[in-house]
Amino acid sequence: AIIVYRLPWTWKCSKLLMKFIHAGLNTIAMVLAIVSMVAVFDFHNAKNIPNMYSLHSWIGLTAVIFYSLQLFLGFAVFLLPLAPVHLRVALMPIHVYSGLTIFATVIATALMGITEKLIFALKNPAYSASPPEATLVNCLGLLLVIFGSLILWMASRPHWKRPPAENAKILRPIGATPEGTEVESTMTNSSNADKSDLRGNTEAARKQNIKFDEAGQRSTM
Amino acid sequence: AIIVYRLPWTWKCSKLLMKFIHAGLNTIAMVLAIVSMVAVFDFHNAKNIPNMYSLHSWIGLTAVIFYSLQLFLGFAVFLLPLAPVHLRVALMPIHVYSGLTIFATVIATALMGITEKLIFALKNPAYSASPPEATLVNCLGLLLVIFGSLILWMASRPHWKRPPAENAKILRPIGATPEGTEVESTMTNSSNADKSDLRGNTEAARKQNIKFDEAGQRSTM
Repeated sequence: AIIVYRLPWTWKCSKLLMKFIHAGLNTIAMVLAIVSMVAVFDFHNAKNIPNMYSLHSWIGLTAVIFYSLQLFLGFAVFLLPLAPVHLRVALMPIHVYSGLTIFATVIATALMGITEKLIFALKNPAYSASPPEATLVNCLGLLLVIFGSLILWMASRPHWKRPPAENAKILRPIGATPEGTEVESTMTNSSNADKSDLRGNTEAARKQNIKFDEAGQRSTM
Repeated sequence: AIIVYRLPWTWKCSKLLMKFIHAGLNTIAMVLAIVSMVAVFDFHNAKNIPNMYSLHSWIGLTAVIFYSLQLFLGFAVFLLPLAPVHLRVALMPIHVYSGLTIFATVIATALMGITEKLIFALKNPAYSASPPEATLVNCLGLLLVIFGSLILWMASRPHWKRPPAENAKILRPIGATPEGTEVESTMTNSSNADKSDLRGNTEAARKQNIKFDEAGQRSTM
């Protein structure tokens, strides 16, 4: 779901279709998360194991709560045609940051869960004796870290960003401000930069560049 | 060390001083990491506990190896005045990404270590009985996640970036290419954009924007 906007074959799809795929995949993940949480609580109750005592469970539950918030806000602000553009623009960097942070936290939670499970499940021989099962699951944990790193790499490369919609660019007059329009692009940033005095006030120019930087994040909105 | 370039009071310091602070703090952290690794191996050997069997140790050692590589490459490329500018430009996004990914991995490793330690150390009452010690350490683990999230937030905000050096901007004629100069800025990107035909070929313009995006990351170099 995170890298849906980063795959070149999807750049031909409409923005709305992309949003539906992004929201749909995340909804499936949320349903799976809820199912697995119910399974964990049922398993604990059936085996008389206390619930919610470990750091794994604390951080995992926190991640699921934030994930459901993220999903709800994503639907309300970015999918439903209700929120004004300035709200979408303001929330997009937070949405992107939250998504990636929740993703990293979920990886960390999985690693803690694997650690717990190996310690509890391997008894004869114990985890510390490095039986083949321990080595296999350790390798799976390492692969999880590699997977997470690759996703974060793809999500954070500027040139893997979905390019701005083409027709919007052709229609937009040069120098038009990006505010109040649905489609933003780094193109617009450059054309906007034409108007500023490049040798002028440094602080003002820096602030303008900040605005451009942030606007650049909107292309996946 | 990660957020050294993100603190407004440091924006007044010279770039070289910033680099020294960044490299110095990371060197101290590396020394502490080595000391703690030696302590762990000594502790294990003294207590007849096998080394390097757990996922915590695998991922931890991987992180330390990548961290030492990162430190060595950082010294060689960004601190010593030997590497050509195009190499610094090419490696800066990788340096930033690696630094943040190693940081996140270290947090995950710490959380796994905390989980292990709580399971092994708490016996009577056990971890699953949630003694006050378990609750306290769980809270410390949660704080570690909050700390990591805040650092990643600070490091990834474009407007928390160190502004480009002022004198370089005044001296540079408008339209000068950034290649081959020591100081780059998003300002330069804008002036470069003046020259391109903004209504021209979309794909070419997109690629140019990508170059600008990447160049924008150089301001902390």
